[in-house]
Amino acid sequence: MNTFGQLFRVTTFGESHGPAIGCVIDGCPPGIAIAAEDFAGDLARRATGRTRHTSARHESDTVEILSGVYEGSTTGTPVALLIRNTDARSKDYDRIARQFRPGHADYTYWQKYGVRDPRGGGRSSARETTMRVAAAVVAKRWLRERHGVVVRGHLAQIGEIVPSAHDWSVVEDNAFFWPDAAQVPELETYMDALRKSGDSVGARVTVVADGVPPGWGEPVYGKLDADIAAAMMSINAVKGVEIGDGFASVAQRGTAHRDEMSAGGFLSNHAGGILGGISTGQRILASVAFKPTSSLRLPGRGLDIDGEAVEVVTTGRHDPCVGIRATPICEAMLALVLMDQALRHRAQCGDVGEVAPRIPAGAAQGESPGDAGDG
Amino acid sequence: MNTFGQLFRVTTFGESHGPAIGCVIDGCPPGIAIAAEDFAGDLARRATGRTRHTSARHESDTVEILSGVYEGSTTGTPVALLIRNTDARSKDYDRIARQFRPGHADYTYWQKYGVRDPRGGGRSSARETTMRVAAAVVAKRWLRERHGVVVRGHLAQIGEIVPSAHDWSVVEDNAFFWPDAAQVPELETYMDALRKSGDSVGARVTVVADGVPPGWGEPVYGKLDADIAAAMMSINAVKGVEIGDGFASVAQRGTAHRDEMSAGGFLSNHAGGILGGISTGQRILASVAFKPTSSLRLPGRGLDIDGEAVEVVTTGRHDPCVGIRATPICEAMLALVLMDQALRHRAQCGDVGEVAPRIPAGAAQGESPGDAGDG
Amino acid sequence: MNTFGQLFRVTTFGESHGPAIGCVIDGCPPGIAIAAEDFAGDLARRATGRTRHTSARHESDTVEILSGVYEGSTTGTPVALLIRNTDARSKDYDRIARQFRPGHADYTYWQKYGVRDPRGGGRSSARETTMRVAAAVVAKRWLRERHGVVVRGHLAQIGEIVPSAHDWSVVEDNAFFWPDAAQVPELETYMDALRKSGDSVGARVTVVADGVPPGWGEPVYGKLDADIAAAMMSINAVKGVEIGDGFASVAQRGTAHRDEMSAGGFLSNHAGGILGGISTGQRILASVAFKPTSSLRLPGRGLDIDGEAVEVVTTGRHDPCVGIRATPICEAMLALVLMDQALRHRAQCGDVGEVAPRIPAGAAQGESPGDAGDG
Amino acid sequence: MNTFGQLFRVTTFGESHGPAIGCVIDGCPPGIAIAAEDFAGDLARRATGRTRHTSARHESDTVEILSGVYEGSTTGTPVALLIRNTDARSKDYDRIARQFRPGHADYTYWQKYGVRDPRGGGRSSARETTMRVAAAVVAKRWLRERHGVVVRGHLAQIGEIVPSAHDWSVVEDNAFFWPDAAQVPELETYMDALRKSGDSVGARVTVVADGVPPGWGEPVYGKLDADIAAAMMSINAVKGVEIGDGFASVAQRGTAHRDEMSAGGFLSNHAGGILGGISTGQRILASVAFKPTSSLRLPGRGLDIDGEAVEVVTTGRHDPCVGIRATPICEAMLALVLMDQALRHRAQCGDVGEVAPRIPAGAAQGESPGDAGDG
Repeated sequence: MNTFGQLFRVTTFGESHGPAIGCVIDGCPPGIAIAAEDFAGDLARRATGRTRHTSARHESDTVEILSGVYEGSTTGTPVALLIRNTDARSKDYDRIARQFRPGHADYTYWQKYGVRDPRGGGRSSARETTMRVAAAVVAKRWLRERHGVVVRGHLAQIGEIVPSAHDWSVVEDNAFFWPDAAQVPELETYMDALRKSGDSVGARVTVVADGVPPGWGEPVYGKLDADIAAAMMSINAVKGVEIGDGFASVAQRGTAHRDEMSAGGFLSNHAGGILGGISTGQRILASVAFKPTSSLRLPGRGLDIDGEAVEVVTTGRHDPCVGIRATPICEAMLALVLMDQALRHRAQCGDVGEVAPRIPAGAAQGESPGDAGDG
Repeated sequence: MNTFGQLFRVTTFGESHGPAIGCVIDGCPPGIAIAAEDFAGDLARRATGRTRHTSARHESDTVEILSGVYEGSTTGTPVALLIRNTDARSKDYDRIARQFRPGHADYTYWQKYGVRDPRGGGRSSARETTMRVAAAVVAKRWLRERHGVVVRGHLAQIGEIVPSAHDWSVVEDNAFFWPDAAQVPELETYMDALRKSGDSVGARVTVVADGVPPGWGEPVYGKLDADIAAAMMSINAVKGVEIGDGFASVAQRGTAHRDEMSAGGFLSNHAGGILGGISTGQRILASVAFKPTSSLRLPGRGLDIDGEAVEVVTTGRHDPCVGIRATPICEAMLALVLMDQALRHRAQCGDVGEVAPRIPAGAAQGESPGDAGDG
Repeated sequence: MNTFGQLFRVTTFGESHGPAIGCVIDGCPPGIAIAAEDFAGDLARRATGRTRHTSARHESDTVEILSGVYEGSTTGTPVALLIRNTDARSKDYDRIARQFRPGHADYTYWQKYGVRDPRGGGRSSARETTMRVAAAVVAKRWLRERHGVVVRGHLAQIGEIVPSAHDWSVVEDNAFFWPDAAQVPELETYMDALRKSGDSVGARVTVVADGVPPGWGEPVYGKLDADIAAAMMSINAVKGVEIGDGFASVAQRGTAHRDEMSAGGFLSNHAGGILGGISTGQRILASVAFKPTSSLRLPGRGLDIDGEAVEVVTTGRHDPCVGIRATPICEAMLALVLMDQALRHRAQCGDVGEVAPRIPAGAAQGESPGDAGDG
Repeated sequence: MNTFGQLFRVTTFGESHGPAIGCVIDGCPPGIAIAAEDFAGDLARRATGRTRHTSARHESDTVEILSGVYEGSTTGTPVALLIRNTDARSKDYDRIARQFRPGHADYTYWQKYGVRDPRGGGRSSARETTMRVAAAVVAKRWLRERHGVVVRGHLAQIGEIVPSAHDWSVVEDNAFFWPDAAQVPELETYMDALRKSGDSVGARVTVVADGVPPGWGEPVYGKLDADIAAAMMSINAVKGVEIGDGFASVAQRGTAHRDEMSAGGFLSNHAGGILGGISTGQRILASVAFKPTSSLRLPGRGLDIDGEAVEVVTTGRHDPCVGIRATPICEAMLALVLMDQALRHRAQCGDVGEVAPRIPAGAAQGESPGDAGDG
């Protein structure tokens, strides 16, 4: 199951320290303009080694298009993308190969397959998410050009710190995808101290899609929110997903939560743009919890493959807060879900067309769980 | 997409007020003992009309086995189950058919399909979940008999109220699936007041699976936690899903979160029994947020199919807290995911067998997000 | 795998002598007018007990629509259809349950599942094909109304007898779906003698679809002809499938086989309307081989479940030529494939629209393998 | 739909004259020994440029393993294989890009996608089948080592010529995969004359699998024979597929066709090793019809993208009989189907184990349709 999507299907392959990573995009509509350099932007946003707050590994992440594009445009046949790994450090893997690190997939891969590639975490490394971001470049383009859908995200929490303000215009200007520029120095200090301590911390990412028309998604098991939940939970280190108000809904009253309507538009968006598994035409809002990285230079109790207790110390290059680089990954997964659902909707309901009345999105769209107005 | 699962595939059909609901279970292993009366237990746990705290609709929920069972045992061919709807009240649907209720799928179905069955919410009604529970009876039995896996759940929050204690033995003895018997009177009073007010409230459900062997699940997109997230989010009214510590992980340090190991077992279970998308052998723990029901007799602002503003009042029979009956549904979805992943694991890794060392589950398994020990 | 199709998905269930057979159609476009009585026509064409040349079993085949249709029109939710079995004769199954009949699935089911439902062949009975025909009624209607596609078929061989003429207008007027009215008396005599002898014979069915636009189908593994091949081979007793000239192509020269084009249209149709897995806009032509029924009152050597040799005599009601009733089944499978591919094409290429130049189908379309003109 | 298989899933990519072709094998069991050089054997059997009877294009077909293999063994993660195209001649594609060649996919790709890669046939070229053969190397190894299954094939007809004898031991010793060494000179002469004439001819390939245990395959839509039919029909230029006696069954009597059983084994194999869609334990036999190549230097009538009539002459390197190289491709597809069905069987019926009685395959297994004994 290394394929994501029903109709816009992305199959990824590759290990962290293997020769290459790559993906095959099948079911891609023809006629999308795409070139190798189009991937650079989002890949750089996701990459390590750009600031001192992320892992020191530096990959050039140069994409080679192997198929499916002719004269700068997709042809409808599989688009294969390849990135060679260049900074996979050779080192003594013998010790690593014999240890199960606490909080890592070492033990579970071992139990599942009876064998594992220990080099840099092998397939369980976040390196795999590079290809999700690459594939989503195509999806984002189609969504924007064909439907005017814009997908974006920001960090919404690091450890105990939450944004004091929401300003989309500053998100791309700091290393933390943080929506409040005034807090960036505080985050710098916080991360410097954390890195020095040798510990790590969790984070929360919020992603939104604006411009999604009503009608995307499917009832019951193919719900748009169910697909988003699976997509986000499939990202390394994710432990929770919310749609709209999420867990805040538990303590809400129905009169507060239900999004009322007027001819001028929806009056709130507690639902996060999805009702009955189908988009309402409002902002799609998802919030994602990332656990703190388990790879630490502070020793932890683990076991080896003989069942003997070992003290595990991780000396490699790792992120003190894996959530920092996760914003483009969450965006990518949301874009892949929307692209797939758009095609699925067209397949079944292509004859339905635009149905009246179309209720405008309304003013209160929400920037994070719980802030979508008074209902 | 009314089919759930890759190998143990459950396809459900039926509308709330249509002639019947049903399901087809395909890919079911042969040799599972099953009879029509085996479904009664879990269906009764999920049913409305049993206490004053749930909807007054009373369905007998009598299951007819149409196929796939011979002489009391599954044969490997599709198991079809049918339940006739008996308490679908005939009433004037004209008004309902013209209104979009706030917080409901009326508008999104309309936008998607250009047509909708307005009777009792049609396909978007929670009545559909009856068949999930029925199908999961087969899965639960196989999981328990073949692998010793036990799936169970309890309510973990209603509105602002959380359990003061965790006692599995009392969960089935009260109408709220509540793990603290002492709080039940408080909940009765709370719900009576709520029902009288005409409003509704959200809830949180915790489900666990004990006895899952290590190795179930798949890396990347078929992760066990990703499947659980999709499964839970596919239930009506769900707005959030957590695995293990969930959103509490965001503020944790890596040293606190990573579950250390000893030869005697894992020392904590912040991961909720899943690492890298694969089961660790510890308790699987998921927590699910339900929004408050939007069907209220308190008027709300809606629109009609001509785009005119209307005041919507829901006069039918509805749950003031839909989460109360959700415990068996969450259990069902967890069982369906585990059954499917067990078969998928056997397909790919059936030759791997039991791999040494097997780390015991350990003492600290957690009853809810955040309480899994000191790490 | 009791589901057929990727997007227009038909899941069937039910055993020959169980309480009922049925199907669930998922992914059905909304807005298709359908009523219970619409199924009667094709079901009667497929049914046994209508003439002395087919099995004496007489089922009323009354379809009940359980879901997915509201006020006479599909709603986009699953359409569930149910037919109660009424003429499943109670008899002593003990002997049958212990014997493996030669040429039957008794032994293979036993080996696969370790258990089998012996009543009337259980799931391996051709009774299952009833639901394929029922589901295809919906597909045929959509194909005809939305795209002008007409699917039809005829018998093209019984034993050694082949049609002397091809006249579509007489096919529905005789019990053999035979395109030459003059031969019908000969066929009657032939079948009467065969039935008297206790033996059975094979048959060939030709099915065609006219009006399919160019562009349906997918390269590589989702080829339109590959889907048709699987669909036909999935019918009970089928042993061969041809597209266009089929096996006659083996001895042809390339200059004879390749279908040349002119502005007025294609000059021949040896390809059977498919090139590179994608429709050309010409007639789709498939030819299907049915083996002779293995259920015979003439004794055959079999084994019992203890491995002992037994003489098997089948005394039930059976078809001396199962291929006679197969024409509507082959039509049904072709319609289901086309419907599914139409939706898949729309999903990926919905923006492509009509592409110039569109080559007309041309005059020589072929009625059977090898007769598509001079090329 | 560039993915083949449900559980052992092969996704291929790449165009004939693009930079590379490749595949990703997902769901591969762990622990299969595989190295880059293991692919050379079967790839050479399929390759062009080895004799004067096939296309002159010469590719080294050097496989690079990009992922999924660690220390010489599969790990359970996706196995990605890459082959760089080296002999994709640069030439003037302008003319080709504007013409629709008769008998080719040029027109259908154009109609489907509105765009096409004209270089060497792009994705519709038989070059894609290289990766099927490569992927099947892994499947063949697992089938042989895990289950003792051996898959092999031979050419069974070229034009009007059929083998006079069946000797498996000579098949790999001649350029035609021909089972009668004495006829090879005749075939050489035949092909030399054909090549000189500028025309092409069709062929028939027979593939068999010995050692398949009873029980593989699934009733109804996942039938083993249905999967084989789709697999074969998905190969370029295939127009027909038979299982066992295939079309010869049409004229047979039931008493002749049904394979009787004795304690010593089956007495014939007209079924081709499959009953009710499930393997019987006998030889699986499939026969496949290939049409004559449409790429000819003899002019044919075509159209250009403006709808104008053109005379098409193909000057590139092409096979005068594409069926000659098709034997390893048909073997590959049969191996992929069996591998997939083996995993599917294990998933659902892994607890069933070996069921008594197991009937031996028996003596009469058949080398081609119609020769499986007297019944």
